[in-house]
Amino acid sequence: MTSPFHTIGILGRLNHAETNQTLISLINYLKEWQVAILVDPDTAAALHDKSVQSVPRTELGKRADLLIVIGGDGSLLHAVHTIIHDAVPVLGVNRGKLGFLTDILPTELAKIKAILDGKYRLEKRFLLSATVEHNGKILGQGDALNEVALIPDSVPHMNEFEIYINDQFVCSQDSDGVIIATPTGSTAYALSGGGPILHPGLDAIVMVPMFPHTLTLRPIVIEGNSEIRIVITPNNTATPRLTCDSQTFINAPPGSRITIQKKSQHLHLIHPLDYDYYASLRSKLHWGRKLHYADSDTHS
Amino acid sequence: MTSPFHTIGILGRLNHAETNQTLISLINYLKEWQVAILVDPDTAAALHDKSVQSVPRTELGKRADLLIVIGGDGSLLHAVHTIIHDAVPVLGVNRGKLGFLTDILPTELAKIKAILDGKYRLEKRFLLSATVEHNGKILGQGDALNEVALIPDSVPHMNEFEIYINDQFVCSQDSDGVIIATPTGSTAYALSGGGPILHPGLDAIVMVPMFPHTLTLRPIVIEGNSEIRIVITPNNTATPRLTCDSQTFINAPPGSRITIQKKSQHLHLIHPLDYDYYASLRSKLHWGRKLHYADSDTHS
Amino acid sequence: MTSPFHTIGILGRLNHAETNQTLISLINYLKEWQVAILVDPDTAAALHDKSVQSVPRTELGKRADLLIVIGGDGSLLHAVHTIIHDAVPVLGVNRGKLGFLTDILPTELAKIKAILDGKYRLEKRFLLSATVEHNGKILGQGDALNEVALIPDSVPHMNEFEIYINDQFVCSQDSDGVIIATPTGSTAYALSGGGPILHPGLDAIVMVPMFPHTLTLRPIVIEGNSEIRIVITPNNTATPRLTCDSQTFINAPPGSRITIQKKSQHLHLIHPLDYDYYASLRSKLHWGRKLHYADSDTHS
Amino acid sequence: MTSPFHTIGILGRLNHAETNQTLISLINYLKEWQVAILVDPDTAAALHDKSVQSVPRTELGKRADLLIVIGGDGSLLHAVHTIIHDAVPVLGVNRGKLGFLTDILPTELAKIKAILDGKYRLEKRFLLSATVEHNGKILGQGDALNEVALIPDSVPHMNEFEIYINDQFVCSQDSDGVIIATPTGSTAYALSGGGPILHPGLDAIVMVPMFPHTLTLRPIVIEGNSEIRIVITPNNTATPRLTCDSQTFINAPPGSRITIQKKSQHLHLIHPLDYDYYASLRSKLHWGRKLHYADSDTHS
Repeated sequence: MTSPFHTIGILGRLNHAETNQTLISLINYLKEWQVAILVDPDTAAALHDKSVQSVPRTELGKRADLLIVIGGDGSLLHAVHTIIHDAVPVLGVNRGKLGFLTDILPTELAKIKAILDGKYRLEKRFLLSATVEHNGKILGQGDALNEVALIPDSVPHMNEFEIYINDQFVCSQDSDGVIIATPTGSTAYALSGGGPILHPGLDAIVMVPMFPHTLTLRPIVIEGNSEIRIVITPNNTATPRLTCDSQTFINAPPGSRITIQKKSQHLHLIHPLDYDYYASLRSKLHWGRKLHYADSDTHS
Repeated sequence: MTSPFHTIGILGRLNHAETNQTLISLINYLKEWQVAILVDPDTAAALHDKSVQSVPRTELGKRADLLIVIGGDGSLLHAVHTIIHDAVPVLGVNRGKLGFLTDILPTELAKIKAILDGKYRLEKRFLLSATVEHNGKILGQGDALNEVALIPDSVPHMNEFEIYINDQFVCSQDSDGVIIATPTGSTAYALSGGGPILHPGLDAIVMVPMFPHTLTLRPIVIEGNSEIRIVITPNNTATPRLTCDSQTFINAPPGSRITIQKKSQHLHLIHPLDYDYYASLRSKLHWGRKLHYADSDTHS
Repeated sequence: MTSPFHTIGILGRLNHAETNQTLISLINYLKEWQVAILVDPDTAAALHDKSVQSVPRTELGKRADLLIVIGGDGSLLHAVHTIIHDAVPVLGVNRGKLGFLTDILPTELAKIKAILDGKYRLEKRFLLSATVEHNGKILGQGDALNEVALIPDSVPHMNEFEIYINDQFVCSQDSDGVIIATPTGSTAYALSGGGPILHPGLDAIVMVPMFPHTLTLRPIVIEGNSEIRIVITPNNTATPRLTCDSQTFINAPPGSRITIQKKSQHLHLIHPLDYDYYASLRSKLHWGRKLHYADSDTHS
Repeated sequence: MTSPFHTIGILGRLNHAETNQTLISLINYLKEWQVAILVDPDTAAALHDKSVQSVPRTELGKRADLLIVIGGDGSLLHAVHTIIHDAVPVLGVNRGKLGFLTDILPTELAKIKAILDGKYRLEKRFLLSATVEHNGKILGQGDALNEVALIPDSVPHMNEFEIYINDQFVCSQDSDGVIIATPTGSTAYALSGGGPILHPGLDAIVMVPMFPHTLTLRPIVIEGNSEIRIVITPNNTATPRLTCDSQTFINAPPGSRITIQKKSQHLHLIHPLDYDYYASLRSKLHWGRKLHYADSDTHS
């Protein structure tokens, strides 16, 4: 079988002992399969391994045909922002426990061979784009895999804003802010704020109010193609900020308008064939296991 | 303009003074427009109005080309179960406050003329079908517009069951039960149980655990085409019940299997052209109004 | 040192293998310390051990000066209802994991010696008393360690009632019911319904609405000495029930009045000296452990 | 009857039209009753009323024997921080709707006469004191009527800290922060964060986690006399801040320790004799009214 992947980029946080160990194991493992290996200059300098090629971080997504990220969901999120405009598919190797985005344990590197052999599942996760505009001027733009969030500047509980969906007025809020999450992000910050879990196959966005003054403001799930607009009231006494995946921050002064919608690009996640979304939920959220009495034919 | 509606069925709870008054106003109003008016025999007997035709309740959905329900969301839900196998579109006239399903106020009967003239929006709301099976025998079947719920028999907090989605194991629960709601039902029982609001345009189902023993069980939103299976553990000490919109009840004894999925039929809701879903949310949930400072061109 | 305990009653669910094993180990352990051992007739019959005395279950609390319950929190709750009018202190031996009420693991029976030697902590947990009255007639009375709950009869979400505290009107509800919990019960059913945790040292009661129609009804914590009255509206369409710890059930028909207040008696719980309430919270709720970097003198 | 109040201080936000109007009405009303009236210099300058005496804002609490605050709960909170070390009792006159702390409507100024005549209820609300310490150095101290909150600096969801109560380890958290609220504050920020309502008569404190990573972290209510200690982990990557009623802010760098406990002073709130705490809950939270069918003798 011909492998679809010939050039593998690798990203991971260097100064973390376990990550480093997994990185070296992974490189040694990959060498067996005649693929080119690219790493960023810092990693290259630390490795002292001539068979590994150093390319600028921003080039990784353009030159690799598979990006492997070592670390937890946070590291993968960070890496995604490096390659967000590239189409390179991403595979996550976790450091020791199952993540929502990182399926492969350090002890399961052998699973990577099957992926190199083309035996994998490709899953498209949609991204959000957010723009802040004030008096006709663009103040900033950002992309998000997990969530776009309007968060306070300094004093909590002081922001007044209106929300519109597809130009329809939805509600005004007096709250700390609001989280606009994708299905991917629904198990991250939005969940800790009381939002529901959205299955990643769902074409939907969830809005979760943060510390709303009005107790009846509840998380609301809308279609993925919706255009969301947030208008900061002109007499708001503070300047809240918009954050994309907690990676970028844009000030949203009183009177500014924030527009959020789905990007045309997606993140392409690579999963091993035995990937099971609900297993990652059970693992991360300590959900109940299959009950012991349940024999296999009860429910098949 | 030719009206698409020539035969109007009317349903409403008789022994309610305001409903009766609205019923008579509505009939008088409709008489102006040369349409046939059908009511159920009880209503006919109470009306003493020869121009109104009496047909059995179960025939209303088959013989009318428009069904008008007078009452709150509960009355409409009740009426829907009468005509659930018919394709007749339904219009709700509320008794005094905006409902999620009943858009027209008694003071706005004039809006009905536009609808008779073909100026309306038709919205399809999907329905759920639920079947309880035990040892290969069907114990019961029901349909729901709002939700299918597994609820306790007598002692709360005593049911153990497993949930599968599209034959994938999701979780086991030790809880009072679970609510499986459509977007239409997301603002009803599921909402009071902590579930999110699902926009009615969304092709999605939400599962809301009821008093779960495991605190990390959270509402989860899945695709509308999912097949949900609930397996009551064989050694469960009670017999929970399955309810469809609190209209039908089916026992689900230990070892039984419940299958829930979308029906091919939909409910066809008629809205006036100025229908605004978010306005009904604001009205019912006491959400914030547009902020006074917001001039109209800020967000248009 | 003279032991304060000379006659030890033991309660536990017989037909559970692990419980039986712990029971036999416990009896053998206690025999070393010259105490009289009492069990209920069923247990006696199963044991075939002449040195163990059989007394009626209802006599256990009167004749023993220490009651040891083997099992989980549920078993202890069940046992408490047997001895609720007696002053006998209770010690819980858990079957394998820490409980909120059962502190001693089967592997830690040696801890019992210290308790027999008088080295223990005695903690008083208050109880609630509930009375249902209709037209001047008492329909039933019950006691609770965890909670008194008004729960639905058959159809969920159908009960209308008013709540008064110390004769002051608090609110009316349209809901499934309400949970009135002690601090002891705050980590049981009330918690799964969204209630807060109340430290057991607190003289307070928490009321948690069940599936309230009004989304702004929130759990409310009131003083332990409060008298709570619930009035079922005379035109309520169903007959909800009052349950005490899910052990007793009393119908509360339309028009009935429920009065709930603290009892003068308490449950006397015995803890080993190293008992740590927060450790049981961390264990049961999977809370975070002390962070690894924290050296011992940082916070002592 | 001799009035207990001879010197009345008045505080309110000047540049608010309704407040100003109420201020003038109040002063005119008070002039009838031979009391001295003190206002701060800004208010005095705006009033042009020679019979009103100007004293520095910080002196108001020392020289007045009753302080009347005009405005909403926020204004009263702000005023309380001016007089927090003084024993002067405080009366709130609201601008138009019932507040939790401001009982008198502008249309009910006549109620003040009864208060001047000694017909009132005095309620003591306890205060919290918070100290941030790092390497043995005090970084700051603050007092709070509503809540002490640990809040993020810039990036949300990035703080790791441990919580101790009375030197017992409770839990570690990875969260945005935590709200430590009094009963008075339980209906403010803590409530919008999902905390329970605490009756003001309760001697208790509630801790509400903010966006906790661990979903089983729930609000916990502890005794009012508890000493709470928060230890920011030394390798926390950000510097969260401590805020007291959103009036004061203190940085809490990695490694710092925060100590929170009840102050010995209280706020003395003056209520008219017909004050009803539950009425303010119903009014502010849109709770259900007494059901119409309920005749007065049903529940008295």
